[in-house]
Amino acid sequence: MGDNTRRLEAVCEKVVEKVRPTADQDKRLREIYNLISGIITKFLSDLGVEASVMLTGSVAKGTHLSHDQDLDIFILFPVEKPLEDIKRLGLEVGERVASELGVKPERRYAQHPYTRLQFRDVRVDIVPAYNTEKGTRIITAVDRTPHHTEYVKKSLSEEQKDHTRVLKEFLRANNLYGTENMVGGFSGYLCELLIHHYGTFPNLVSHARRWTPPVVHVYAPDQIEPCDSPLVVQDPVDPRRNVAAATTTKAFSHFVVLANMFYEQPSEKFFTPIRIDASAETVKRVLSEKGTTLVSVVLERLPPIAEDNLWPQLEKSARYLRKKLVEQGFPVIHTFCWAGQGRAIIFLESQSVSTHPIRFNLGPHITTSWEKQRAYLGKRVSSGDVVAGPYLVGDRWVSETRREEINIVEGVRRILEKGHGLGRQIRKALRGSRVSLDPLEAATSGEVLNTILSEIRRDQLVQRFRVAHGCG
Amino acid sequence: MGDNTRRLEAVCEKVVEKVRPTADQDKRLREIYNLISGIITKFLSDLGVEASVMLTGSVAKGTHLSHDQDLDIFILFPVEKPLEDIKRLGLEVGERVASELGVKPERRYAQHPYTRLQFRDVRVDIVPAYNTEKGTRIITAVDRTPHHTEYVKKSLSEEQKDHTRVLKEFLRANNLYGTENMVGGFSGYLCELLIHHYGTFPNLVSHARRWTPPVVHVYAPDQIEPCDSPLVVQDPVDPRRNVAAATTTKAFSHFVVLANMFYEQPSEKFFTPIRIDASAETVKRVLSEKGTTLVSVVLERLPPIAEDNLWPQLEKSARYLRKKLVEQGFPVIHTFCWAGQGRAIIFLESQSVSTHPIRFNLGPHITTSWEKQRAYLGKRVSSGDVVAGPYLVGDRWVSETRREEINIVEGVRRILEKGHGLGRQIRKALRGSRVSLDPLEAATSGEVLNTILSEIRRDQLVQRFRVAHGCG
Repeated sequence: MGDNTRRLEAVCEKVVEKVRPTADQDKRLREIYNLISGIITKFLSDLGVEASVMLTGSVAKGTHLSHDQDLDIFILFPVEKPLEDIKRLGLEVGERVASELGVKPERRYAQHPYTRLQFRDVRVDIVPAYNTEKGTRIITAVDRTPHHTEYVKKSLSEEQKDHTRVLKEFLRANNLYGTENMVGGFSGYLCELLIHHYGTFPNLVSHARRWTPPVVHVYAPDQIEPCDSPLVVQDPVDPRRNVAAATTTKAFSHFVVLANMFYEQPSEKFFTPIRIDASAETVKRVLSEKGTTLVSVVLERLPPIAEDNLWPQLEKSARYLRKKLVEQGFPVIHTFCWAGQGRAIIFLESQSVSTHPIRFNLGPHITTSWEKQRAYLGKRVSSGDVVAGPYLVGDRWVSETRREEINIVEGVRRILEKGHGLGRQIRKALRGSRVSLDPLEAATSGEVLNTILSEIRRDQLVQRFRVAHGCG
Repeated sequence: MGDNTRRLEAVCEKVVEKVRPTADQDKRLREIYNLISGIITKFLSDLGVEASVMLTGSVAKGTHLSHDQDLDIFILFPVEKPLEDIKRLGLEVGERVASELGVKPERRYAQHPYTRLQFRDVRVDIVPAYNTEKGTRIITAVDRTPHHTEYVKKSLSEEQKDHTRVLKEFLRANNLYGTENMVGGFSGYLCELLIHHYGTFPNLVSHARRWTPPVVHVYAPDQIEPCDSPLVVQDPVDPRRNVAAATTTKAFSHFVVLANMFYEQPSEKFFTPIRIDASAETVKRVLSEKGTTLVSVVLERLPPIAEDNLWPQLEKSARYLRKKLVEQGFPVIHTFCWAGQGRAIIFLESQSVSTHPIRFNLGPHITTSWEKQRAYLGKRVSSGDVVAGPYLVGDRWVSETRREEINIVEGVRRILEKGHGLGRQIRKALRGSRVSLDPLEAATSGEVLNTILSEIRRDQLVQRFRVAHGCG
C-alpha cells in the first residue's frame, strides 16, 4: 500500500510539471489582463460610471492549466444600479475592448449576455456582475464568482493549487470535466473545494475509491436545500448551495471507478484522453456484429449559439427523438451527439429498422361516465383502424390498431417535421436536416468516426481498464 | 328511466322462466340425493362411524339453474375426529356410493381429496368435512359450506333465489361466473349475497353501473382482513373473510361495463353466450391484418387433473412462457389457453417471430467492492460475447451481448426443455408437447378456432356492444 501511494505521488508530480503554466505563460496572461483592464477602466471613467474591474476564474485563482489560456474579466457594478443598465454597459465595454484590440466581439448568453473575444491565443470573457457583499443574497447568477475567486485564492496552498490542476487534467482526459455538456461532470470550483477538503490529489483518489452516494461535505447542514445529488459539497461562499448539484450519478460513478483503476495502477496514461483511430470499415464491422442500426440526423447549418447552450439542446432533441421513436414501436437503445465546425449530428442506435405492427391505444377508465365510455366504444367499434378490442385491461379500456409499417428514417423525418419537443433554438436547423441510415455518410471526419466507434462500443472505461492492466 | 326499469324487469322475468328448474327436475334431483344419502348413512352406520349427511350447494339453497344438475353431498364428522380419518372415510364413502350405483368414482383434490361421480345426467360430489359450530374457526376449507347453505336458505326469499339464478346466467353467458379459471369471476355464494344485498337483479344492475372500486359491503369493518380487492363483501358466516377475494379487477370491470350495456338496452340476448363461428380463413385473415404471429403449444396428453386445477396451471405456464420470451427479446403481447377432451393449448401472440439482437446484462453496482468489480471487468473484457461495454448506467455496470437470433418456436422449445416455472403437474405434458407457428395446425375443432378468433380480436365486449346497439 505504501509503495502504491508513493507511485501515485510520483505520477502526480510528473503531471504537475506538465500542467502547471510556466512563469512566462503567466506573465503573458497578466500583461494581457492589464492591457484589457486598462481599456475598461478608462472607458468607464470617461462615461463617469462607477465600477471596478476584477480578474476571476482559474487564472486569478492560480488553478489554471498550462494549455488553458482563458481570462475571465468581471466588471463589478454597485448593487443599486438597475440590471438593464448593467447588461447594456457590459456589452458596450465588450465592444470597446474588441474594437481597441482589433478583434471581433462575440455576444454570448448565460443568465445574461456577456462578450467573448479571442486575442492572440487567449480567450477572453468580459462579464458584467454586481459587487455584492460576501454572504448576502446574489442578484445575478455570476455574482458569486468574485467571492469564489477570493475564497480559493486565500484558502488553497500553492501545492493544493497544483493538485487542483492534476485533478482537472484527470477529469478532462476522462470526459468528466465541466457541467455544461452531456457528461454532467465536475466544475472547476468543485475541483478546488475537493482538493481543499482532501488536501492532495492522491488523498482524494484513495477516498473516492470507497465513495458511496450520497457523499456529503457540509459545514451547516440545516442551511443547504435538500437534494438527491450523489455528491453534496456546500458552497463556503453561499451555504444554501450544493456546488456539485450539476454532477450526475453517471459522472460520479465514473469518477469512483476511475479512482479505483488509477489507484491500483497509477500511470500518467490516465491523464491522456483515450486515442481511438476509427476507420469506416471498423465502424461498419462493429455495427454488423451488434446487429443494430445507426440513424444519423445531420444538422448542416447550426444557428449562432454558444457551445454551452448547444449541448443541452442537442441532448434534449436526442432524448425527445428516442422517446417518440420508442412510442412508435422502434427499439432505440442509445443516443449520442457530435458537434463541431458549425455542424452537429444526433445519432440513434436502434435494434430494428422497422416498427412493430401493433399500437396500443389507451381509452377511458370504467369509472368514467358511461356516456363517455359509450361514445368511445361507438367510435372505436366503427373505426376501420382497430384490429383488436376495445377490451378491458384491469379497469381501463384499450384498443389495438395496426401501425403503418415504416422505416426508422421515415419515422425520424415525421417527428422532425412536427418539431415539438425539440431544442427551441435548433428546431429550425433540425427541419432542414438530413436523416441517414448510413453512418459513413454522416462521418465526414475522423473525429466523427471516433465518436461513433466509442459510442457503439461504449468502451471508454473498458479502454482505461485495458490500458491500466496492460491487456488487450 | 321508469320505462327502462320496466323493460329490465320484463327481461328478468322471461329469463327466470328459462333458468328456474321445473318441479319434475327438482323432484328427480331430490330422489337421487335420497338414494345416495341412504347408501352413505347405511355404510357409516355399519362401520359404527358417527357422522351426518347434508345436501349443500346451489340445489340445497334453491339457487341452481335448470341446466345445472350438480349435487354437493357433504359428510359431516365431529370436530374431534382426526383429519386423516376423515379424508380416508370420505374416499371410502365415495367408492361405496359409486360401487352401489354402478358408476366409476373419480378422485379429485381441493384442499383435501373428495369423490366425483356421474350418475345419469347428474354430477355428484361427495365431500367429507367437519361439523363445526357456526362462527367458530373452521378446520378445513370446505367446513364453511354447510353454514353458507344454511344462511342462504333462511335469508333469501323465493323471488331472490330466482334473481340469483338470473345473475348467475348473466355472468355465465359473459364468462364471469366462477373463480377457478382465467376470469377470476363471481362465485355462486357471492351471487347470492349480492342479490341479498340489492334485493333484485334489476336493482343490482342499476347500482353496479356506477360502481367505483373498491365497492365495500361490510357489517363489521374491524373484523375483516385488509385487502385491495375491487369488491369487498364480508362473509355473514365468517366476518374475517371477503367472499369476493378471488374476483379480479378485470372481472369486476367487465361486470360494470355489462351492467351499463344491459341497463341501457335490456335484452334476453345478454343471457346467451356470444356465438362466433370462426373459419380457418377468418383466423388467417385477422392474423394477417394484425401482422402478429400466433404460437401454439399443444399438450396432447394431459395428466388426470381436475379442471379447477388445470386452469391455474395452464395460466401459470402461459405467464411464465410470456415472461421468458419477453426477456429473450420477443415482443409477446397476449397469451390465452384452451382445454378440452384431455388436451390443452397455450397460445402466445407475438409482434415478431424473431428476437432483437441485443441483450442487456446487469453487472455490479459501483458500491460493490473494487475487487469484485475488477473481476467482473476482467471477465467481460476478455469475453468474445460482449459487443458493447461494460459501461455505467447510473451507478451500475451493464454490458451488451449479441443474442443468437432465433425463431420464436425455437425460443419456446428451449424454455419448455428447461421446464422451470411451469405448472408442476403439467410440466411433463408440456415437455412432450408440439410447438407450432401455424394456428390451424392446433385448431382441430371449431371450438378452438372460436377461442382463437375471440382472443386475437379481443372483442367479447365489442360483440355485446354491437348486439345491444344493433350495429355491425
